[in-house]
Amino acid sequence: MRYLTAGESHGPQLTLIVEGLPSRLPFSKEKVDEQLARRQKGYGRGRRMKIESDEIRILSGVRFGRTTGAPVALSIENKDWNKWSDVMGVHPDREKAAKRRVSRPRPGHADLNGAIKYHHRDMRDVLERSSARETAARTAAGAVARQLLEYCGIRVAGHVVRIGSVGTRRLEEWKAEEIAKKSEESPVRCLDPEAEKAMIQRIDEAKQEGDSLGGVVEVIVENVPVGLGSHVHWDRKLDARIAQAIVSINAFKGAEIGIGFEAGERKGSEVHDEILWSEEKGFHRATNRLGGFEGGMTTGEPIVVRGVMKPIPTLYKPLKSVDIDTKAPFEASIERSDNCAVPAASVVAENVVAWEVARALLETFTADTAENLLREVNRRREEARNF
Amino acid sequence: MRYLTAGESHGPQLTLIVEGLPSRLPFSKEKVDEQLARRQKGYGRGRRMKIESDEIRILSGVRFGRTTGAPVALSIENKDWNKWSDVMGVHPDREKAAKRRVSRPRPGHADLNGAIKYHHRDMRDVLERSSARETAARTAAGAVARQLLEYCGIRVAGHVVRIGSVGTRRLEEWKAEEIAKKSEESPVRCLDPEAEKAMIQRIDEAKQEGDSLGGVVEVIVENVPVGLGSHVHWDRKLDARIAQAIVSINAFKGAEIGIGFEAGERKGSEVHDEILWSEEKGFHRATNRLGGFEGGMTTGEPIVVRGVMKPIPTLYKPLKSVDIDTKAPFEASIERSDNCAVPAASVVAENVVAWEVARALLETFTADTAENLLREVNRRREEARNF
Amino acid sequence: MRYLTAGESHGPQLTLIVEGLPSRLPFSKEKVDEQLARRQKGYGRGRRMKIESDEIRILSGVRFGRTTGAPVALSIENKDWNKWSDVMGVHPDREKAAKRRVSRPRPGHADLNGAIKYHHRDMRDVLERSSARETAARTAAGAVARQLLEYCGIRVAGHVVRIGSVGTRRLEEWKAEEIAKKSEESPVRCLDPEAEKAMIQRIDEAKQEGDSLGGVVEVIVENVPVGLGSHVHWDRKLDARIAQAIVSINAFKGAEIGIGFEAGERKGSEVHDEILWSEEKGFHRATNRLGGFEGGMTTGEPIVVRGVMKPIPTLYKPLKSVDIDTKAPFEASIERSDNCAVPAASVVAENVVAWEVARALLETFTADTAENLLREVNRRREEARNF
Amino acid sequence: MRYLTAGESHGPQLTLIVEGLPSRLPFSKEKVDEQLARRQKGYGRGRRMKIESDEIRILSGVRFGRTTGAPVALSIENKDWNKWSDVMGVHPDREKAAKRRVSRPRPGHADLNGAIKYHHRDMRDVLERSSARETAARTAAGAVARQLLEYCGIRVAGHVVRIGSVGTRRLEEWKAEEIAKKSEESPVRCLDPEAEKAMIQRIDEAKQEGDSLGGVVEVIVENVPVGLGSHVHWDRKLDARIAQAIVSINAFKGAEIGIGFEAGERKGSEVHDEILWSEEKGFHRATNRLGGFEGGMTTGEPIVVRGVMKPIPTLYKPLKSVDIDTKAPFEASIERSDNCAVPAASVVAENVVAWEVARALLETFTADTAENLLREVNRRREEARNF
Repeated sequence: MRYLTAGESHGPQLTLIVEGLPSRLPFSKEKVDEQLARRQKGYGRGRRMKIESDEIRILSGVRFGRTTGAPVALSIENKDWNKWSDVMGVHPDREKAAKRRVSRPRPGHADLNGAIKYHHRDMRDVLERSSARETAARTAAGAVARQLLEYCGIRVAGHVVRIGSVGTRRLEEWKAEEIAKKSEESPVRCLDPEAEKAMIQRIDEAKQEGDSLGGVVEVIVENVPVGLGSHVHWDRKLDARIAQAIVSINAFKGAEIGIGFEAGERKGSEVHDEILWSEEKGFHRATNRLGGFEGGMTTGEPIVVRGVMKPIPTLYKPLKSVDIDTKAPFEASIERSDNCAVPAASVVAENVVAWEVARALLETFTADTAENLLREVNRRREEARNF
Repeated sequence: MRYLTAGESHGPQLTLIVEGLPSRLPFSKEKVDEQLARRQKGYGRGRRMKIESDEIRILSGVRFGRTTGAPVALSIENKDWNKWSDVMGVHPDREKAAKRRVSRPRPGHADLNGAIKYHHRDMRDVLERSSARETAARTAAGAVARQLLEYCGIRVAGHVVRIGSVGTRRLEEWKAEEIAKKSEESPVRCLDPEAEKAMIQRIDEAKQEGDSLGGVVEVIVENVPVGLGSHVHWDRKLDARIAQAIVSINAFKGAEIGIGFEAGERKGSEVHDEILWSEEKGFHRATNRLGGFEGGMTTGEPIVVRGVMKPIPTLYKPLKSVDIDTKAPFEASIERSDNCAVPAASVVAENVVAWEVARALLETFTADTAENLLREVNRRREEARNF
Repeated sequence: MRYLTAGESHGPQLTLIVEGLPSRLPFSKEKVDEQLARRQKGYGRGRRMKIESDEIRILSGVRFGRTTGAPVALSIENKDWNKWSDVMGVHPDREKAAKRRVSRPRPGHADLNGAIKYHHRDMRDVLERSSARETAARTAAGAVARQLLEYCGIRVAGHVVRIGSVGTRRLEEWKAEEIAKKSEESPVRCLDPEAEKAMIQRIDEAKQEGDSLGGVVEVIVENVPVGLGSHVHWDRKLDARIAQAIVSINAFKGAEIGIGFEAGERKGSEVHDEILWSEEKGFHRATNRLGGFEGGMTTGEPIVVRGVMKPIPTLYKPLKSVDIDTKAPFEASIERSDNCAVPAASVVAENVVAWEVARALLETFTADTAENLLREVNRRREEARNF
Repeated sequence: MRYLTAGESHGPQLTLIVEGLPSRLPFSKEKVDEQLARRQKGYGRGRRMKIESDEIRILSGVRFGRTTGAPVALSIENKDWNKWSDVMGVHPDREKAAKRRVSRPRPGHADLNGAIKYHHRDMRDVLERSSARETAARTAAGAVARQLLEYCGIRVAGHVVRIGSVGTRRLEEWKAEEIAKKSEESPVRCLDPEAEKAMIQRIDEAKQEGDSLGGVVEVIVENVPVGLGSHVHWDRKLDARIAQAIVSINAFKGAEIGIGFEAGERKGSEVHDEILWSEEKGFHRATNRLGGFEGGMTTGEPIVVRGVMKPIPTLYKPLKSVDIDTKAPFEASIERSDNCAVPAASVVAENVVAWEVARALLETFTADTAENLLREVNRRREEARNF
């Protein structure tokens, strides 16, 4: 399973092709739209997000509400395209485009290095693609994968565990359904009501200071069969692929599995998960500090992965930069109403993780049809229980 | 450029094939052996490492001390193979092999999930491959890549920034040569003499307690041209690929770029790197909190990446587990002399990062011959300086 | 460079994403449309093709008539979608769809094996994707690649060398421009006026018999730099990749390079191309029987590749098959006006070959921007001339 | 499943790593050696082949005669390495190496374009890798894949259908076991005794003339499950992948599926395979002109694929070429005792096809263990029978 996305922030649409799905998988437009809507919410987002209300159009690969096995193409319209067509069209109006030309690279964005790499003198030709708008397409890809997981009884949930200086305590148990429900009810997707309050306050304060905040999100995947990924070659380790998926989200600077960086601080006896066995459950673990992975393979315990998002770089509080034409320094300050995108980013994170887990399923099991896939996933569950 | 590794911990040898190198690259056996030797050192390692003294044999692709463009095959002998051939051979002695059979999965290892996945009742068939011994082959692959980087004036260095509870302060400047030199002189590869002392003490204490320690390593890559990786598609972001490479090292549980997880705690104004310009340097940054990446592309500032290693799971202090034959619980305790492999792992980390950067170079520039590659890398440097 | 296509024959549209193009490549919608129009012409095609008149819509990645480096998404509308939306929509009208259900597999199509693989009881869910309609998207991808080749002074041409029993003599010289011009003027894309006449006659005869014809097409790529592809590993041989591309075109059953299968009949002294050298040209060949390849690498001589297309399987003359519901035999006979698609297929072949050559260029040379690519291609030409 | 090969013709050894095998697959060294031995035989081969007697050494991934799931590394020693180490070592003797330097490119070899690409002035650095010696490693890879096919009841056979002007008639039935047996008994691997005689005579005649001969080989794969490969995306079509594999064999210039190029000459009614059904067999075909593929997917009929090999380019009869130092023309004539390698090449072809089919199996079905793979292959067979 693979996908490609295309589309600029102010182009006509985002386009996504997902290739390699099994046939006969129930496919719901609404479930994709739901993820897109979740991605647009969250305390700290500004207005643009609110009007957007993304929605996919299914262009191929689905009939009678099920996949056919053929590639699924989806588009997501950019609602303000009519305002931008003169600037962003294939043959834009030179004058109008010139007014929107970007010659001032913003710190923390791809503007400058992208322009150097691709020889762009109008950095709009970088930022239109490097914009987080693209994560809508990745979320849609994940939302497709998620339906495959759901079909196999695998649940994904996410929540926010830090915004700026406000962090939460680690969970000891990961019940995906409960986490999903609770995080959905929180404007900052935080499970802990006290932390939630503090987070909201920090966002408001930062806004007043003209500053922005990042944070940390956690994604849980529950009921995963044992043995996705493999220890036999480094590039087949699923935890590492998930780390790549997380760090590749716009503005993400790190990823950790289970207790992650804390594992570097603890003693060995406080890190590893003891192995238990019972008639009903078969082998299982007393704890899940390793976040569902040993040797790059799933253990059957919930996958727990975290990613860190840096604060939004465009903010009222100016950062120094230099104009590429004049070489004159200036202070980069852009009026925008978002100052914290962490809750939204946690939705993106859920969906990119969903993609990687689904991809691993398809690589591991017979997967021409959804029914055969499910049967094989269940067989693995049984093999594990009876091992 | 791609590679495959093969080989078990107690098999006859590790084997490595590197395919896709440019021709005419100076290739030194000694430089590979040097990385292998560095990987075997470090306070906290036990005896086995000391006798090992790994060395490659070059089996193809190099002539007159230069690559020919053909695949380079390398082998690394396992010195104790003669003691193990009865157990680990293609047709082992049943009795001797039975004595070495592993029916007791060790927490924190691939033993159990690997056995479930691959239907092994002797978990030796998992652990022989999941063992960190394999990192010798990956180090060798990185040591090849590193010669390519060196040829292009790109330097790699690494050091240890945390062992257990003892951490160091962030560097503000990254001078690869200096870091390499200083970390080489430290038994724990730590740049800060006070922290070094404390780390050694912690390792000794943990040993006495029968416990083990993990830690955090940092890798620096200096003089990287602008624009490796790309913002245009998620799977071309080089920082994310590096994250995958790091997390795929045995026992690593997380990776972060630049200030990484700290970016989630700070305010935006304290995270992003202001852009400066001067006649001599062209565009550059006031700071390097983002670790040399914006938009998944190199900025020309040093790449700074960290990885966290969990403590070695096999230790005197017993962890509970369950025998797969009898289902009887037992306490897993193995006598081994290593209790901290972080300094050695930092060498592995350096080399896997070197690989990813070299791969990105070859993808970006004309690379049939080393000379053409260097010329193109230098052209990019000039383009960046004159942008 | 990579691409994905999506879309069914009677769905709303074909969708194409091309990822990995250099920036600043002149990109003309008209040049893509021109290839699509060429694909729709040709003696022996029926009506549907005539009304179709395909046209792309550029959805991303192009601004001011040049690529930006971002993925290029293109769509090609299916003009009769409004007539099919009740049958082929995501939630079709059950009754109308039932009328269009296909329970009778056509010999020579993917219908039956596709249905078995993907568990489809309505084989429309196979044939809508396996239809040659998809080649419009592949042609568009090739037409994008072709603009890159053109920018580098590389020309592609194709012509028909056999229709049924009527074949032509091998060319001794390959002048792409001339071939392109002449084949364009021929309704069967044949360069030899006598063969052309005979081909047309054979098509008419076959039509009267209710039968169909296949044939052989030849693609030429001129002014290719030396050394695309590589002998060092089998999967990097460019001739073999081109063979894959050709055989993967719907209804193609074989591919050959240069004199191809004739090389099996001749003696060695009549197969190989003698090597010459002159001050102006540098090294070159006396002949080009090997079709521009030695050791899987381009020699600098024109690439010459042929592909064979089987006759269209749906024809008036009935073929026996069996209904999948009733298991009753029937005679598959479908009224359609095409009985020879070889001229059109030669256009598809040109474009899939263009893709592979362009891909090899981008893998071989610095390719972030079109200007840098061209400079490097020219440098290779100079290196070859001065070798 | 993937593999890399390394090694030069006169280096110490060939090295092969096969990654992605299921565990618990019976693995026989002898079966690999048998394929290597078959590759070395055949009328028309000279002396070198006779002494060679290749044999693998298993370096990893196999224990108790079964795969463990870990990468399998194999080496094949070059028996004359001790004579060549001064020339081909990492640090050769300059004088001895100079004597063996190749400055005269041979027509029909990679010598010249390889040298231009990789900037080699000693073309030995090309030809040592481009030599057909490498096909021993590919044969070994195929011989591994073949054991997987055998385990799943899939049989591979090959035979020679043309040497120079002498061709055979097409088979109407493909019984792999019988073909394998008969071709093994023939010094030219030809099933037809009369053609065999004529082939041998042609080889002798050509030898006398100082000339060489190519030919055409056919590979059959029997008992393949329905639906390997896929019609949904061009690069998943298995017939096209097989074509790539065939054309990538040294000296191969074309590939065809089923009746291949003949399909271009026949009428549609004489090309397609009618579909039948019976209680015992389920769906099947009356004929197998399409060689086991429709829509890029297996139909369940035997895979039939042909490849054409050009004559060996080095022969007594001289071909003109030009020295790269002096630019003086010369006549390339090399004394060698092979003048026809087609029988041997047919063995290589069998094994590269085996690889592609095995790879497709692993992509399609649950494949962590051999037992699970077999069960799923059999389930597909049953699904097809009951469709």
